[in-house]
Amino acid sequence: MKIRNYTFEEFVKRVKEFHGYEAPGVIIGGFMVDLAYHHLPKEGLFDALSETPKCLPDAIQLLTPCTVGNGWLTVVNVGRYALTLYDKESGKGVRVFVDTEKLEAWPELKTWFFKLKTKKEQDADLLSTQIREAGSGICGVRKVEVAERFIKRRPRGSLAVCPKCREGYPLDDGPLCLACSGKELLYFPSK
Amino acid sequence: MKIRNYTFEEFVKRVKEFHGYEAPGVIIGGFMVDLAYHHLPKEGLFDALSETPKCLPDAIQLLTPCTVGNGWLTVVNVGRYALTLYDKESGKGVRVFVDTEKLEAWPELKTWFFKLKTKKEQDADLLSTQIREAGSGICGVRKVEVAERFIKRRPRGSLAVCPKCREGYPLDDGPLCLACSGKELLYFPSK
Repeated sequence: MKIRNYTFEEFVKRVKEFHGYEAPGVIIGGFMVDLAYHHLPKEGLFDALSETPKCLPDAIQLLTPCTVGNGWLTVVNVGRYALTLYDKESGKGVRVFVDTEKLEAWPELKTWFFKLKTKKEQDADLLSTQIREAGSGICGVRKVEVAERFIKRRPRGSLAVCPKCREGYPLDDGPLCLACSGKELLYFPSK
Repeated sequence: MKIRNYTFEEFVKRVKEFHGYEAPGVIIGGFMVDLAYHHLPKEGLFDALSETPKCLPDAIQLLTPCTVGNGWLTVVNVGRYALTLYDKESGKGVRVFVDTEKLEAWPELKTWFFKLKTKKEQDADLLSTQIREAGSGICGVRKVEVAERFIKRRPRGSLAVCPKCREGYPLDDGPLCLACSGKELLYFPSK
């Protein structure tokens, strides 16, 4: 069993290094990314869309060239455990999701996914075994075409110095940066 | 010169592996993260806030335990090249930003930062030299306390199966998941 170029054990190790611990969600996400690639052409440049900020973005960042910082991974929070890898020009690609009906065969996995027990009540070993045995068998795959906003990149406009904070900001945001204009309250000065 | 536990060359290599190329923004971000840690207590658990999705999140993900997927890194797009590392309990921490006045001493860096020339017109070697020589010397540091929404975690509510897509979703989002309720158009079926 491989997860992209990793053995299962190697991938778990990478997850621990990057994510901080062997999160079930990232391991499952690894199987999901792997499954998506099996349904994509061998050649091509694919962008990624994650429908949740929880765990899944890290599986994508570990197994694809897409990261949040390079802009090839977009995270939209609709709370579904699903990802899409798509051709960056055409927007056509493959969406992989957790098929809730298939979870019925894996009770501990289902319990974890739907948070039916507290973390303390869960059987971590059994969960780990079921994740490994189920692999991408709990997933569904659909061909999709992503919405235009995920393909068309807005040309980067001019930058200016915000007259209030004196930092650089995109002039398109208005006469002040979004923080100084009060649209986003981020922090207060501290002693 | 070290960037956290890396030499400059080692960090540039890690940036290339993770981000796909030696992006100036991620290299500068490395100096920024390093500077932040110099102003934080040696011990402690720090969450991260990036004020831009461009490049900076990858420097944070490479040099801190914080990633998008583990929830310790929050990305808010106010278009400023700034990050905050803060104590996850108290919200108190350190904000590091690019000080636009300090950029005056580094013309090619300033040109890159404010996008005053096209990529083709830029002198990549000179830019690289100036980034390395300037290091965190183009940055400012302020003690801050982040807004409450970055500290208080909402308890994770119940999950349910969306009656339309049959996928798991947070029940707090309403009777349908946010994708099925039309609040977020993500993709179309494709052949």
